[in-house]
Amino acid sequence: MNHVVKVGVIGLGQMGQIHARIYRKMSNVDLVAICEYSDERRAKAQEEFGCKTYKHYKEMLADPEIDAVSIVLPDNLHREAVEIAVQNKKHILLEKPLAKELADGKAMYEITKDYDKVFTVGFLLRFDPRFSMIKRALDEGELGDIIHLYCRRNSPIIGPRRYIGASDLSMHVMIHDIDYINWYMQSEPVKVFAKSRSVLLKEHDMDDVIYAIVTYANGAIACMEACWVLPENSPTTIDDKLELVGTKGVAYVDSCDNGVRFVSDKRIAYPDSRHWYEANGETSGDLSEQLYAFINNVVSGTKSIITPKEAYDSLRVVDAIERSIAEGKEVEV
Amino acid sequence: MNHVVKVGVIGLGQMGQIHARIYRKMSNVDLVAICEYSDERRAKAQEEFGCKTYKHYKEMLADPEIDAVSIVLPDNLHREAVEIAVQNKKHILLEKPLAKELADGKAMYEITKDYDKVFTVGFLLRFDPRFSMIKRALDEGELGDIIHLYCRRNSPIIGPRRYIGASDLSMHVMIHDIDYINWYMQSEPVKVFAKSRSVLLKEHDMDDVIYAIVTYANGAIACMEACWVLPENSPTTIDDKLELVGTKGVAYVDSCDNGVRFVSDKRIAYPDSRHWYEANGETSGDLSEQLYAFINNVVSGTKSIITPKEAYDSLRVVDAIERSIAEGKEVEV
Amino acid sequence: MNHVVKVGVIGLGQMGQIHARIYRKMSNVDLVAICEYSDERRAKAQEEFGCKTYKHYKEMLADPEIDAVSIVLPDNLHREAVEIAVQNKKHILLEKPLAKELADGKAMYEITKDYDKVFTVGFLLRFDPRFSMIKRALDEGELGDIIHLYCRRNSPIIGPRRYIGASDLSMHVMIHDIDYINWYMQSEPVKVFAKSRSVLLKEHDMDDVIYAIVTYANGAIACMEACWVLPENSPTTIDDKLELVGTKGVAYVDSCDNGVRFVSDKRIAYPDSRHWYEANGETSGDLSEQLYAFINNVVSGTKSIITPKEAYDSLRVVDAIERSIAEGKEVEV
Amino acid sequence: MNHVVKVGVIGLGQMGQIHARIYRKMSNVDLVAICEYSDERRAKAQEEFGCKTYKHYKEMLADPEIDAVSIVLPDNLHREAVEIAVQNKKHILLEKPLAKELADGKAMYEITKDYDKVFTVGFLLRFDPRFSMIKRALDEGELGDIIHLYCRRNSPIIGPRRYIGASDLSMHVMIHDIDYINWYMQSEPVKVFAKSRSVLLKEHDMDDVIYAIVTYANGAIACMEACWVLPENSPTTIDDKLELVGTKGVAYVDSCDNGVRFVSDKRIAYPDSRHWYEANGETSGDLSEQLYAFINNVVSGTKSIITPKEAYDSLRVVDAIERSIAEGKEVEV
Repeated sequence: MNHVVKVGVIGLGQMGQIHARIYRKMSNVDLVAICEYSDERRAKAQEEFGCKTYKHYKEMLADPEIDAVSIVLPDNLHREAVEIAVQNKKHILLEKPLAKELADGKAMYEITKDYDKVFTVGFLLRFDPRFSMIKRALDEGELGDIIHLYCRRNSPIIGPRRYIGASDLSMHVMIHDIDYINWYMQSEPVKVFAKSRSVLLKEHDMDDVIYAIVTYANGAIACMEACWVLPENSPTTIDDKLELVGTKGVAYVDSCDNGVRFVSDKRIAYPDSRHWYEANGETSGDLSEQLYAFINNVVSGTKSIITPKEAYDSLRVVDAIERSIAEGKEVEV
Repeated sequence: MNHVVKVGVIGLGQMGQIHARIYRKMSNVDLVAICEYSDERRAKAQEEFGCKTYKHYKEMLADPEIDAVSIVLPDNLHREAVEIAVQNKKHILLEKPLAKELADGKAMYEITKDYDKVFTVGFLLRFDPRFSMIKRALDEGELGDIIHLYCRRNSPIIGPRRYIGASDLSMHVMIHDIDYINWYMQSEPVKVFAKSRSVLLKEHDMDDVIYAIVTYANGAIACMEACWVLPENSPTTIDDKLELVGTKGVAYVDSCDNGVRFVSDKRIAYPDSRHWYEANGETSGDLSEQLYAFINNVVSGTKSIITPKEAYDSLRVVDAIERSIAEGKEVEV
Repeated sequence: MNHVVKVGVIGLGQMGQIHARIYRKMSNVDLVAICEYSDERRAKAQEEFGCKTYKHYKEMLADPEIDAVSIVLPDNLHREAVEIAVQNKKHILLEKPLAKELADGKAMYEITKDYDKVFTVGFLLRFDPRFSMIKRALDEGELGDIIHLYCRRNSPIIGPRRYIGASDLSMHVMIHDIDYINWYMQSEPVKVFAKSRSVLLKEHDMDDVIYAIVTYANGAIACMEACWVLPENSPTTIDDKLELVGTKGVAYVDSCDNGVRFVSDKRIAYPDSRHWYEANGETSGDLSEQLYAFINNVVSGTKSIITPKEAYDSLRVVDAIERSIAEGKEVEV
Repeated sequence: MNHVVKVGVIGLGQMGQIHARIYRKMSNVDLVAICEYSDERRAKAQEEFGCKTYKHYKEMLADPEIDAVSIVLPDNLHREAVEIAVQNKKHILLEKPLAKELADGKAMYEITKDYDKVFTVGFLLRFDPRFSMIKRALDEGELGDIIHLYCRRNSPIIGPRRYIGASDLSMHVMIHDIDYINWYMQSEPVKVFAKSRSVLLKEHDMDDVIYAIVTYANGAIACMEACWVLPENSPTTIDDKLELVGTKGVAYVDSCDNGVRFVSDKRIAYPDSRHWYEANGETSGDLSEQLYAFINNVVSGTKSIITPKEAYDSLRVVDAIERSIAEGKEVEV
């Protein structure tokens, strides 16, 4: 067993940079290469991380020194990048979602389902203690069977302005909830009614808000809300709520306030102290836990807790949500 | 640079077990030995961790295979264990407090202040994002100068019943706050007025509650509360609050609700999802971050952010609190 | 202008008793009569309130001494009681809902719309400062136009067990939210998709939970949740939440914690300190404010802020929710 | 028994105006007169309230038409105004504190202790359901004996800037807590250690913050914090907290968030929805409850729950706090 893993990061946008910073702090990871198409960003990343750089991921994935990669590319490039990474036998952490199109997701599921390296998709809430504690309570039977649940993942309008044309609300935001709800339900999603509205983002042809009511084969109902047009000055980065009502108990997540608050001339802020945060000069949090778990999977030869099937199932629900919105009625998943 | 660190844990009580479980999940740590005086606990730990075991820490510390140790012994054994560990050139993570007696703390400070291996003391709130974000805001000047702060660290009566005769409230609980407050203040504590009361723990000659008002050289005031007689059925494990008022802004920590809640037949609980928690079968949280930082210090040859001087200074404030309570008046630190 | 109002209360169940207690504390109200069909309850009420009693409301309503009445009867008796009260020219406060059946509600709307005495329906959230402050912010334009809102009104299973056969979730609980949402929207509700589930209350043929998505003529979406099967030991009596997202701002109500909490041997409770509560031996809160407003309307000859049209419109939405659940698809209001 | 009470308000500053507005909405109160020394304010008040006006309270108190008065004058005028009101046999609601000087308070206590009209002092938290519910739980024995309590009453720096030279922190703010703590304790305050600091208000010779530790005859400890230099943009008007630890249970008040929140271009605000608030065009809340209780006392010939002795005792604790700050040591009350 080799304890040291040589890692490359593909895509040095905002999230890719965070992956790279987390890898850099891990004492048994060598961040050996980064890949970024933009010359400016690539130069900047090289300055920060001081490792080999590539402009094209195809070339980087052919580099035999690299054991494992984080793929943090735009959604429409996920399929090709994963196909090449699989051909090159890399351990793969792919940022969510699996793919932009359902057909691509299906194809990716086929080539990764029996892959003998680590393949995982970046649903970081699986590594958030609040959500994993509820999974555990469900598995241990404390909450009984799920009757229904409500969840919310709302954020300021600053976010979608960065993604104009690149992603939409169901695919970018709601998919986080879809993933953990499927994980909790242990039952197939069968029907979806969804409704959206576009006011503030209408000019960009994007949804302001989506409500989706998903019915599972076991009868359980999940009502999901995603909205990314909260005011710019919202103190909370992500207003992330969950209420799960079971036959024997209830569980709640509320992250409107993550335990630390600031009021100063500069801001009224309830900053994220969960997903990724900087503490004592290092980046930690759920994403860091996910990357540690990925590296542990690589070193120990184990599989991720997030399976290709699950990543594909999340995409199927997103697809049903979009169809229901378009057709104006409840649809089959 | 050797990426793999061989670690031993000394003392397999509740906390020592958690140290061992965290080391076990780290892919570049080999948990090679544990030390536990109780035959029963030692046998149990060997079964769980499957490594070498020692009954006496003196013997374990002489083992040349071991690079680094966590010392999780009763407070009165800290001095001897550290002295032997230093003689054996081990990297050392010592659980707080530095020592039970001020004189011991002074002696330990002297032998560790210029130690050329890692020496750190387990003040895990330094690795809690809520507290470290406030440190950063202070360092960046966002909050201005500290005018005053209030903090609370209260918990159910279940805790002290485990520590009867072994530790007291100022030393066991309040010292966490003293450490980070000193870290924030960047000024010497000069005067302390403290008041305690003993009702529910009177028979054990322990304090129920302590209030301490500490005045710093820069004029700032810190009012601390520690109480460990909350009802057994308190939903919150630790009611941990901080309010810091600066000349340019304020900051708050509130951990009464850590973002996840359960109501079931078995419990109404707002479980700890910060200090140490189990998620997906692994133990994570602030303590895990602290141990990762310790290992990173060992691998990279750097120093801990917690210095021997700081660990000793916390002890000096505890000593002043106890003197003020005994004398019924404000005392010098 | 006569400052003293002579009041009668019809129906001395749980809510009727609270009405009577509130009237009793008002120094310009004489509680002159109570009406209760159950001999046992009537005797008990007479002992508590020491006024005239009636078994049949028809007789009480014929009493010329009485100026104003609170009607706190089962829903199916509302129509007849109001008709007789109108014939007798009483000022009327009718507990919600207007009626059990839409046709009855229509008829009642017709006879009260031009009534020259006070007629109001007990939607006490109109008198809750949290909800009325949001109304004011909407009226003043601070929040812009409503894009969407989510609300929740969930409570422990203790409640529905009292109403077996007498009322259902949409009519009894959700109607509170329907009323204030209609008030906020200033637009006609046009379409409803609703979904319910029955697990714990299946044997009683009652819903555990309802989700309803209401679309208004102005395009705004309201997603409502009502669930009354929370665990019996839920610390919160009513988990009442509102999130309203407007084009210029957002507003939230959260009453999970109403500002006061108890943990003792007897309970972990976040008691209601809003709707009706006892303080210093008197019953106060939103309901008390509503009754004060009713008496002020009577004395000053003004109309209630709750109109017959609004009470009828709430019933129309309840009716659409029930039709959508039955038909399994979105329906017109 | 005359149900209609003729009321006058003396002092039409911010608080006096609120008194007047509340009286105006009461259907059995006639607001017959207001008194205001400032010509400008008096003219404005006459326009709003349309009743008789007086420049000098001595003249108004001689008006035989008036049954009852609210005295809302600067603290240093309280004694004289109460003396004249007593001579004129008025029912009196005096805004807190009883007096500015302990000697004045003593004299006022003497003339009001056996007064045969209503005399009460405006400690509105007695009428706040959160605080009165805790009083009830204490009286019923649910919480056992008080071991200790902590309370906080902090607010933005906007407040003290209005009171420059007129009042100080202990007298203006902390006295609210002193009143209800004495009410809870049912034991004499015997010793006080207090510490203050002045930074942002130093130029005005006012305290920024005070901590006071009060020891009661029964051994219970109360730690109080008052600070009125929070940032101007604090979302919370009053950060009002209470933690009470008893031998059988604990109770908490937290009003940092009063159940309703706004985020808009204009503000991030958690407005007061307790002390006094406007809803549907009327002013309601704790202060309104207090005025209703005052009128009920007047009409029914009963006494207020706030006694002259209690009002004087609060002043004695304020005096001890100021002495402890001045002397730098614990003092006797």
